[in-house]
Amino acid sequence: MSSVNAITGKDSLPTIANVKVGELATGQALTAPLFSFIGEDSAAPSVYIQANVHGAEVQGNAVIHQLMTLLKDYTVLGDIHCVPLANPLGINQKSGEFTLGRFDPITGVNWNREYYDHGIDIAQWFNEHQHLADKELFSAFRHHLLNSCQQRLLNPWGISTGHRLAVTLQHMAHDADIVLDLHTGPKSAKHLYCPEYDAESATFFSIPFSLIIPNEFGGAMDEAAFYPWWQLTEFASTQGRNFDVPVAAFTLELASQERIDMADAKTDALGILAYLSHRGVIKESVSPAKMKRWGCYLKDYKKFHAPKAGLVEYCAKPGEPLAAGETLVTLLRLEQYGSDEAMTSVSLPIDCVPVLHFASASVHQGTELYKVMTNVFSIS
Amino acid sequence: MSSVNAITGKDSLPTIANVKVGELATGQALTAPLFSFIGEDSAAPSVYIQANVHGAEVQGNAVIHQLMTLLKDYTVLGDIHCVPLANPLGINQKSGEFTLGRFDPITGVNWNREYYDHGIDIAQWFNEHQHLADKELFSAFRHHLLNSCQQRLLNPWGISTGHRLAVTLQHMAHDADIVLDLHTGPKSAKHLYCPEYDAESATFFSIPFSLIIPNEFGGAMDEAAFYPWWQLTEFASTQGRNFDVPVAAFTLELASQERIDMADAKTDALGILAYLSHRGVIKESVSPAKMKRWGCYLKDYKKFHAPKAGLVEYCAKPGEPLAAGETLVTLLRLEQYGSDEAMTSVSLPIDCVPVLHFASASVHQGTELYKVMTNVFSIS
Amino acid sequence: MSSVNAITGKDSLPTIANVKVGELATGQALTAPLFSFIGEDSAAPSVYIQANVHGAEVQGNAVIHQLMTLLKDYTVLGDIHCVPLANPLGINQKSGEFTLGRFDPITGVNWNREYYDHGIDIAQWFNEHQHLADKELFSAFRHHLLNSCQQRLLNPWGISTGHRLAVTLQHMAHDADIVLDLHTGPKSAKHLYCPEYDAESATFFSIPFSLIIPNEFGGAMDEAAFYPWWQLTEFASTQGRNFDVPVAAFTLELASQERIDMADAKTDALGILAYLSHRGVIKESVSPAKMKRWGCYLKDYKKFHAPKAGLVEYCAKPGEPLAAGETLVTLLRLEQYGSDEAMTSVSLPIDCVPVLHFASASVHQGTELYKVMTNVFSIS
Amino acid sequence: MSSVNAITGKDSLPTIANVKVGELATGQALTAPLFSFIGEDSAAPSVYIQANVHGAEVQGNAVIHQLMTLLKDYTVLGDIHCVPLANPLGINQKSGEFTLGRFDPITGVNWNREYYDHGIDIAQWFNEHQHLADKELFSAFRHHLLNSCQQRLLNPWGISTGHRLAVTLQHMAHDADIVLDLHTGPKSAKHLYCPEYDAESATFFSIPFSLIIPNEFGGAMDEAAFYPWWQLTEFASTQGRNFDVPVAAFTLELASQERIDMADAKTDALGILAYLSHRGVIKESVSPAKMKRWGCYLKDYKKFHAPKAGLVEYCAKPGEPLAAGETLVTLLRLEQYGSDEAMTSVSLPIDCVPVLHFASASVHQGTELYKVMTNVFSIS
Repeated sequence: MSSVNAITGKDSLPTIANVKVGELATGQALTAPLFSFIGEDSAAPSVYIQANVHGAEVQGNAVIHQLMTLLKDYTVLGDIHCVPLANPLGINQKSGEFTLGRFDPITGVNWNREYYDHGIDIAQWFNEHQHLADKELFSAFRHHLLNSCQQRLLNPWGISTGHRLAVTLQHMAHDADIVLDLHTGPKSAKHLYCPEYDAESATFFSIPFSLIIPNEFGGAMDEAAFYPWWQLTEFASTQGRNFDVPVAAFTLELASQERIDMADAKTDALGILAYLSHRGVIKESVSPAKMKRWGCYLKDYKKFHAPKAGLVEYCAKPGEPLAAGETLVTLLRLEQYGSDEAMTSVSLPIDCVPVLHFASASVHQGTELYKVMTNVFSIS
Repeated sequence: MSSVNAITGKDSLPTIANVKVGELATGQALTAPLFSFIGEDSAAPSVYIQANVHGAEVQGNAVIHQLMTLLKDYTVLGDIHCVPLANPLGINQKSGEFTLGRFDPITGVNWNREYYDHGIDIAQWFNEHQHLADKELFSAFRHHLLNSCQQRLLNPWGISTGHRLAVTLQHMAHDADIVLDLHTGPKSAKHLYCPEYDAESATFFSIPFSLIIPNEFGGAMDEAAFYPWWQLTEFASTQGRNFDVPVAAFTLELASQERIDMADAKTDALGILAYLSHRGVIKESVSPAKMKRWGCYLKDYKKFHAPKAGLVEYCAKPGEPLAAGETLVTLLRLEQYGSDEAMTSVSLPIDCVPVLHFASASVHQGTELYKVMTNVFSIS
Repeated sequence: MSSVNAITGKDSLPTIANVKVGELATGQALTAPLFSFIGEDSAAPSVYIQANVHGAEVQGNAVIHQLMTLLKDYTVLGDIHCVPLANPLGINQKSGEFTLGRFDPITGVNWNREYYDHGIDIAQWFNEHQHLADKELFSAFRHHLLNSCQQRLLNPWGISTGHRLAVTLQHMAHDADIVLDLHTGPKSAKHLYCPEYDAESATFFSIPFSLIIPNEFGGAMDEAAFYPWWQLTEFASTQGRNFDVPVAAFTLELASQERIDMADAKTDALGILAYLSHRGVIKESVSPAKMKRWGCYLKDYKKFHAPKAGLVEYCAKPGEPLAAGETLVTLLRLEQYGSDEAMTSVSLPIDCVPVLHFASASVHQGTELYKVMTNVFSIS
Repeated sequence: MSSVNAITGKDSLPTIANVKVGELATGQALTAPLFSFIGEDSAAPSVYIQANVHGAEVQGNAVIHQLMTLLKDYTVLGDIHCVPLANPLGINQKSGEFTLGRFDPITGVNWNREYYDHGIDIAQWFNEHQHLADKELFSAFRHHLLNSCQQRLLNPWGISTGHRLAVTLQHMAHDADIVLDLHTGPKSAKHLYCPEYDAESATFFSIPFSLIIPNEFGGAMDEAAFYPWWQLTEFASTQGRNFDVPVAAFTLELASQERIDMADAKTDALGILAYLSHRGVIKESVSPAKMKRWGCYLKDYKKFHAPKAGLVEYCAKPGEPLAAGETLVTLLRLEQYGSDEAMTSVSLPIDCVPVLHFASASVHQGTELYKVMTNVFSIS
């Protein structure tokens, strides 16, 4: 982290710094901007928000812009750190007219599966630290996580480009009590990844669909942020010591990639503000948007792969319920014109809510066409 | 061309053949399907329609599908040859979630700039053939063009992948009196490329915007098809012999890439049918759609390049007039948050109709953001 | 699998079939050729060899060509099935002047990490089948694996493009007793991946370096082939029943990608022949090449990532020992000309044998520069 | 251009500046380093050297490094400006394990075909300025070229990313009397592009093969630099005024892309030094390397495209004469094993010197396999 320059002259503007996340072949530093609001109350939870780890998923930057602008009119109690444009290599990687957004173009590794599994022996750590009071226990655990990231970055054999980016971001995230990772789907309705232990938080954001995910680590930022704390909480409870999971982390999927919509960004910034208000990060009360919200367990979130290749008319609109047997896509196979195979309607055997679909209108056999929620339930 | 199999059992179904346009590294043939309707009247004009030479521009295939289906109910007088999926290498070339559509991934050459310039010495050719009557003259000229393509394909030093594709398609096009090349823009309103000498034809298609292009050759299919005939016509007129340009060729840009819309495809198929009806290719009369149509000379069709890099909210909608000074795009520069540069509104100094814009919401400095028509006039 | 056509007229030529492994967006089938030699002795082990699952790793095809040609002069006892050009989508996927070889261009998933983990409950399976004699036990287990692949391919939600390819190949592999997967490194010395339980087999191939890998499954073909059998063998031994692991599987890394060398391919074909002779697949005796061979445990196989970005002169030659402190690469940072950082020599703190290095001469920070063997030992 | 910082403490070190050539989507400036030696004699010719405009062609950077280091021991009379890493966007654009080197990944345009055609009405310009003495005439013409570049960069409709880069570099080049553009081939012998009027200069560089190119403009840097001056010289001579073409410009192709070789870079730096010595840019005499040198006219420089697809063993070594009928490549078609088509030897009907070949070992039909010189002649 380098060159912290306070933006002066206005009360509620954040300071800005540049975080170095890597180096390009030409030697130029890869940097991401870090905006920091210093809260008035050190007891209030601190927040880390990042956007655009997947290169094409730009809308989160607009949301951060709108959130920072809204914050001018609120009293910030907890520290808030925002890192828009978090993956400069990914954002700048164009291929044809689009952004090669999801994976490192050299290795193929998904930018959001590179976070570090600390591999903590939680039993041993807890045994060594259980004499500490809760606040000190959490502080020691946080210190452990931060230190583990630093050691990882100093590995004498080096670490990969994507892992360096991820661990650098993760280090900042571990310093916060609330972590929000702003993504989008390809062509998508808004949806939230929310850990099981924290499902009620899904009612604050301006997001109609929530995926309730297991308390596990699969490589993504939200999991990297909450999972060690969930482990700690679980183990402590087996030892007869009970506290809430001290860290909350969510992935917000803010509609479609390759799209900037400033008005919609304000809607989502207000949703985030409602959650932060609920958590006491800002002083003022902000009510969550009144809207219907639905949930689905991750095990009921289904990928549907193209049963055959062809051109695709996406008939089912993301976010709108689709009854069993209704057309999901029309598949066109021009070379079979004159036969029944030239145009086929594809449907699913069960009711669902399609949440997102593939971005291109032509697909190889096996392309993931849709992700759909099944066994959807209302959350209030 | 191989394996011609008539699709039997219905009256008005086309025959189908496969056209070989190249070979993949693994040895598999690159083929495109060719559908042929044989007309009842050999004096009626013949037609060649192709789609999807740019890999991501798939909607033309849907239009061909709808056109062939509509033709079941009409009497076909002139031969009609349709080649959907004309560029199998381009269509199958995915990069990330999109199709790497516009250029050969190896050489970078635009697939629609590879057509062959025959380099005819038109004066010499005319002098040698001017004794022929019009019909024979045209036949001899067509033979010359076809033969020139064949010779090109047999070049002992080989020809490039893209050039082989283009010349193979061009050979089929030269055999027709009417050539339609179906494309799309990135995010685009429908528009037509129409040569100056044939501007009145723009009133038949279901397309609101027409670019009137000079009678020149720049490497594209439409130009490759009409330009030699325009040269012949022009030269003959200088020799005191007058006839209409015997070949008509147009590029139809059917809205946005990466999109299949079967209902909209029917609209455009009907527009093509109206033109074919006007030209006597089908027996029945089909009226063009009643709609406002506007024109613009190519010299007044302006590209606007991003004056600086950033995230882009495309505010101006393709096809809707934009007054001088109205916002074209909002450019977001998050790293400059706190300054006036963080969010800037970009406008143009003159009235225009934005026709298309770039597909991605983040741009390097210099990316072509919009193409806009200026000095737009009504065509009836 | 389709259209089996025996190549007739010569005694020892294989039959050929085409295996369908997917479909391209244009509708064309993705196929790989399958060459089959039918052995004279049904008791002899059967063999499955594939090449070019990573698109740029073409040399294995040349090795298969030479092997099939050599086999004309030998008596084939066990069935031998060869699938060169196994990944047509990967092989045909060019990006610039090279092949985008290692991962699906849409999803980023490594083509060689898509094989299926059957997730067998080995205890239950063994308990249900332990009454069978060895031969029947193995046959039942093989049947289980084959059936599991078939079920996977029929998943009603579809399966991904890469997984379909992998499971289709895996199904063929499970039918064999010996599985050889032919790969290459980027710029690489020849090396073999050899499971711990089968380390002695490393002395037959014409390959100087062997990585001794744990008996585990990480998604690659060799592991997919041997791991279930190793599980079975291990569990049976805990139940007091002992047999050798019935299936052998290896990955051969045949020097560098983007390279065809027919003479060198013959050398490697002879090495494979020596192993097949040892195993009784051919009747005649073929001696392994006399050469020094070295081994290294996978845990001692180290990746070295670029500590900083820059231009790279690869000083250490793959396959040649490098002492601690000797120059591995020279890193050039032109923009720092005039300082000590402009040209730096990078070395490792321990003795090693560099086995492969990155293909490009400019690297971002974190690029995997070299893989090196440490704690190398002689195998005879 | 920004932040000029003299590197102090040594006599003969250049000053360094950063040239801004564009902006990335994230807002970061695209910059290239500019190293400047200020000569002692303002009457001596000035020099502009750039490298790495094609992203994968890195060796020119190493040559600039070695040249700048060698210059410590020479007396610099004319100004020398060096821009290594000239195309940061291209250099940093990785696709898989290689650099997507030749064209803009968004537009497909070759980075070395983006230079500006000033479209000067040379007759008018000369008529307006012919009263000037030679030195003033050249100064006015240079001023015209520089101003034309500046106007181009200020185009109110913006200019494309690649054109901005090119014109920014071209502006620096127009300020010099000698322009060297350092490139490489794919897999290549060293060769020089040398304009016809300046053919004797080919004997100074350490380069065995020279292409004698017409005095024309096709979009490349060397042509952009010399062609306006050649036009001026030609037109003046038609008006009875004679002078030598005042500007010399060459493209040096320094062997293969994706390769850094510091020792070989020194060889080429010495060749450049020999030319600069000959031109009086340095005080001391440096003799050109004694070596055989051959020439070929561009019209005799032939591209050979793959007559069919397949795997390729490149049998002919760049730089070594190949007699008519000798094997150029072996083409492997595994799927045709058992037929004569499985392995074919391809040769040319005439003697030639292969200069470069394609980088990948698998090719689609039509891939440019080799460029070969025919009608080669000795130059002394």
